[in-house]
Amino acid sequence: MTTYAADIDAVHAAARRIAPFAHRTPVMTCSTLDALAGRKLYFKCEHLQKVGAFKFRGACNAVMHLSDDDAQRGVVTHSSGNHAQALALAAKLRGIEAHIVMPRNAPAVKRHAVEGYGGRVVLCEPDTASREGTADEVQQQTGATLIHPYNHPDIIAGQGTAALELLEAQPQLDAIITPVGGGGLLSGTSVAAKAVKPTVRVFAGEPKNADDAAQSLAQNRIVPQLSPNTIADGLLTSLGELTWAIIRDHVEQVMTVSEQAIIDAMRLSWQRGKFLIEPSAAVAVAAVLSDAFKALDDIEYVGVILSGGNVNIDQLPWAP
Amino acid sequence: MTTYAADIDAVHAAARRIAPFAHRTPVMTCSTLDALAGRKLYFKCEHLQKVGAFKFRGACNAVMHLSDDDAQRGVVTHSSGNHAQALALAAKLRGIEAHIVMPRNAPAVKRHAVEGYGGRVVLCEPDTASREGTADEVQQQTGATLIHPYNHPDIIAGQGTAALELLEAQPQLDAIITPVGGGGLLSGTSVAAKAVKPTVRVFAGEPKNADDAAQSLAQNRIVPQLSPNTIADGLLTSLGELTWAIIRDHVEQVMTVSEQAIIDAMRLSWQRGKFLIEPSAAVAVAAVLSDAFKALDDIEYVGVILSGGNVNIDQLPWAP
Repeated sequence: MTTYAADIDAVHAAARRIAPFAHRTPVMTCSTLDALAGRKLYFKCEHLQKVGAFKFRGACNAVMHLSDDDAQRGVVTHSSGNHAQALALAAKLRGIEAHIVMPRNAPAVKRHAVEGYGGRVVLCEPDTASREGTADEVQQQTGATLIHPYNHPDIIAGQGTAALELLEAQPQLDAIITPVGGGGLLSGTSVAAKAVKPTVRVFAGEPKNADDAAQSLAQNRIVPQLSPNTIADGLLTSLGELTWAIIRDHVEQVMTVSEQAIIDAMRLSWQRGKFLIEPSAAVAVAAVLSDAFKALDDIEYVGVILSGGNVNIDQLPWAP
Repeated sequence: MTTYAADIDAVHAAARRIAPFAHRTPVMTCSTLDALAGRKLYFKCEHLQKVGAFKFRGACNAVMHLSDDDAQRGVVTHSSGNHAQALALAAKLRGIEAHIVMPRNAPAVKRHAVEGYGGRVVLCEPDTASREGTADEVQQQTGATLIHPYNHPDIIAGQGTAALELLEAQPQLDAIITPVGGGGLLSGTSVAAKAVKPTVRVFAGEPKNADDAAQSLAQNRIVPQLSPNTIADGLLTSLGELTWAIIRDHVEQVMTVSEQAIIDAMRLSWQRGKFLIEPSAAVAVAAVLSDAFKALDDIEYVGVILSGGNVNIDQLPWAP
């Protein structure tokens, strides 16, 4: 029997650990989107989670799981996205330092967001070597624990708590779909959902222009993401070894969607659902509305995890 | 003892009547807005209600309360706003006709929204005489029942169900604040909140540029709204006699806010709360953030009813 980085016990432990800090986000419906999908959809609103994304679940679980000794030396990560803010807030809530390694060319708004949560931003060059080297340096100097954005057991278990809540609220679900980038949300969802309800089918949506997860499933190995080019800026990364093993064995299919489909799905979600979601979250909505998903048999009730809402409201993708 | 158009029994009856149709909307928090307000805020998310606004509560209650005889002759109203869509959807759910009288110059998007819910749009000239005359004509031709947007007992009772849910979820509230236009939401909230928790204090937010409710309280009579000029396009109307009597006797204060404060509050709600609210809803947020509200003593927990999210996402007020 294969052992994975996280199991349902770890997800339950994460749920208990983050309960005092995280929002139990609502599950909403939208009859217009139901009609377009031809199914009954249940949207888990992680854009209403702390820091505006599911990422807070994993980061909070990882930080609260540290021993007191480890905790007092702080945490470090390399991310300019939602994980960076999530880790900064989780560390603040525990009263410890968070060092966030971020490329020099990251938008100022992302730096300020991390600093707003009390995180310490450490700039690096915009390449993998500098990013990892800088994180190593911080670790050596401070003894901080590295909390990887997705390839980490506590992150996977934490992200799985969203599916746990979703299935508690809507046990009739036949399928659950999430977006996939590094695979933290998708793997955590798989672990939680399949344990709670073995018959539930797990799917992912992915941009056609960053389709490493679809390629990985097709080739049955991790295919790295080389030159992603998508508006869904939370989904640029490759799968990790820990997330891949779970995804490989539990995910039925990854639906890839075009850039236009992502924008259309985001716009529909805003207009009709009043869900203020970011493009990466809209990828799962676009997937549910795709012909490939509609062609599947025996699926009536679908849970859609809306992953986050951190979007530049001064520059919407449908602006003229 | 004064008798009002609606009492708590009517609100409870409305809650039972609309339960199969309306969303029980979530109550969310936002630590950034808490910090700015200096208090703990609980946002009742009526932008996530059916048709994107609390208006569905009242319209649904009114339509479902009709006798079968009356119902089969349909309903009629004059509105180009959220009440129009709400009544159209409520009528559709009961399987009856809704005639919506709307000025010729109403935006096409509002006509299409009503038609999308199966409502029949009847155009009139853009003045009060033509609007009321046209509604009268429809009534005479069809026998349809007029459902006024706010000055109607079932509408007031229906709108009160939001406060009922809010206080069930957060019984510790010291105060509740809503925006005020015609006063349906504010009067319904007053009836529900004061009955459930007599110590709760009820406030309203109103645009400085459409401050008829504030003027009415100051002069202790209905002061009509003459030339409103505000981005909060749901709050242009004057109070009705039924809503005024309740507001006069239960509302502690109406906080008026500037256009800039409304836009700033809307932007903050979007950015930090991920609440996709319309300007009229942001008026209550702006009021909670105002110096006048901050100066009040003995208020720790505040319920804020976010009234709706029907906003043109192609033309945001902060667009360059």
